Amino acid sequence: MQPSDLSTVEQRGCHGGTHGVYRHASAATGCEMTFSVFRPAGIERPPVLFYLSGLTCTWENATTKAGAQRYAAEHGIALVFPDTSPRGDDIADDDGWQLGQGAGFYLDATEKPWAPHFAMERYCAHELPDMVCEAFGFDTGRMGLTGHSMGGHGALTLAMRHPDRFRSVSGMAAIVAPSRVEWGQGALAAYLGDDPQAWAEHDACALVASRGWRHDILLDQGLADGFYAGLRPEWFAAACAEAKVPLTLRLHADYDHSYYFVQSVIGDHITWHAERLK
Amino acid sequence: MQPSDLSTVEQRGCHGGTHGVYRHASAATGCEMTFSVFRPAGIERPPVLFYLSGLTCTWENATTKAGAQRYAAEHGIALVFPDTSPRGDDIADDDGWQLGQGAGFYLDATEKPWAPHFAMERYCAHELPDMVCEAFGFDTGRMGLTGHSMGGHGALTLAMRHPDRFRSVSGMAAIVAPSRVEWGQGALAAYLGDDPQAWAEHDACALVASRGWRHDILLDQGLADGFYAGLRPEWFAAACAEAKVPLTLRLHADYDHSYYFVQSVIGDHITWHAERLK
Repeated sequence: MQPSDLSTVEQRGCHGGTHGVYRHASAATGCEMTFSVFRPAGIERPPVLFYLSGLTCTWENATTKAGAQRYAAEHGIALVFPDTSPRGDDIADDDGWQLGQGAGFYLDATEKPWAPHFAMERYCAHELPDMVCEAFGFDTGRMGLTGHSMGGHGALTLAMRHPDRFRSVSGMAAIVAPSRVEWGQGALAAYLGDDPQAWAEHDACALVASRGWRHDILLDQGLADGFYAGLRPEWFAAACAEAKVPLTLRLHADYDHSYYFVQSVIGDHITWHAERLK
Repeated sequence: MQPSDLSTVEQRGCHGGTHGVYRHASAATGCEMTFSVFRPAGIERPPVLFYLSGLTCTWENATTKAGAQRYAAEHGIALVFPDTSPRGDDIADDDGWQLGQGAGFYLDATEKPWAPHFAMERYCAHELPDMVCEAFGFDTGRMGLTGHSMGGHGALTLAMRHPDRFRSVSGMAAIVAPSRVEWGQGALAAYLGDDPQAWAEHDACALVASRGWRHDILLDQGLADGFYAGLRPEWFAAACAEAKVPLTLRLHADYDHSYYFVQSVIGDHITWHAERLK
């Protein structure tokens, strides 16, 4: 994939830097993919933070509603907002919002009809980082992952599965145990089949036990989150404690699962990553 | 108890303020009690943070090893370091270090031979705060509690049992579930008898469920802590989540149970309390 394969959908100034939306033909997903990028001003080879979004989202939700660019500009860190799945009329889909388009779960599906297009792990951990770092001059040695809900699951699992690629990781209202909650079990079964070992390879609580993480992790959770029963950050705290992985877990009063929550904590996450990607 | 009943053991300058060690005849414990106080300079009616110490400690361990005075001076907050139990030749004791003198568990014992002298709840929640605030001009409306190990248990349980007295609370390597771990069960049985309901009234996990806490809580824990099996901060995270009590739990790599850990995080705790007692 060459940078020249990128087409610019839109591009404009933002917090002294540049914000753009781009499209390209993805080899991983076998379809056109759209994503957005914030580039801070005046930084040679900045570190880059990938923000993975939740169920039903595209690149656009966090791009427009998280308020992240302001903090990224302050810290001199680039932001990339990928889509959450392959998309298109010839891509498989489901009537529910927890499977199919908008619900890629950041893994490479092995089961039909989702394989081979649903390959969001290869896309987010390899193809997209390689391409954007080459196209925009970001530092591939200083990449971090964060995300919200299903995107928090993606951030945690991709970081632990690709520690050679990502140096910092955090999550907001993350799905940390998809193999143990109804919310994730349907998707894991559809994408990966019935093998529990395959599920454990995409479950943050299981991965922190099996692979660990050599740095520290930040996890934020609202206590008024209507999806709490499917999130259970205390399970992740127990897994981190058992694996001796440093964790900062913040349980916040009042916040729900929305972007009002994300915009309230995103500044702390960007500061967290900026400090670790210095 | 009048301030004039205080006798000064020693007193000297410290970080621009004053550090002193004092003795008094306690009505609550029926014996002489010793404690230390740091007073910041130039603050009229400062807020005050009580630091409760762990098993085997006196007022002296944290006073001399936590490095807390520097941060208290910066934030203009007073510090009080109580002893961990009644003491004296005529006070009951035990051969083990988890019961008796040095192991008061911040509760009022109902069982002989510990009752009536072992009344550390009345002492730390009422008699001592009232006396030091009157003697030194601290603000009784802005009192916080922190502590280490058994002292973290004391801070959490006394705050939740006396929310009219304490406005902020934090813990370091705190015993959060003494009724469920061997470390606490022996002491609770000795001091309170065999009634599990009585134990639950002095167990932070049980109290956060039964009484809650209207503010947020900070809890720090080292992952190299040899006593981890008796601490289990993830249980407290689960209880806070269930009760919708805001919590920041930080699991730190490498730190053990010692004052090398306490001195590493005490600054964050004093900042936390200072912000909440403003």
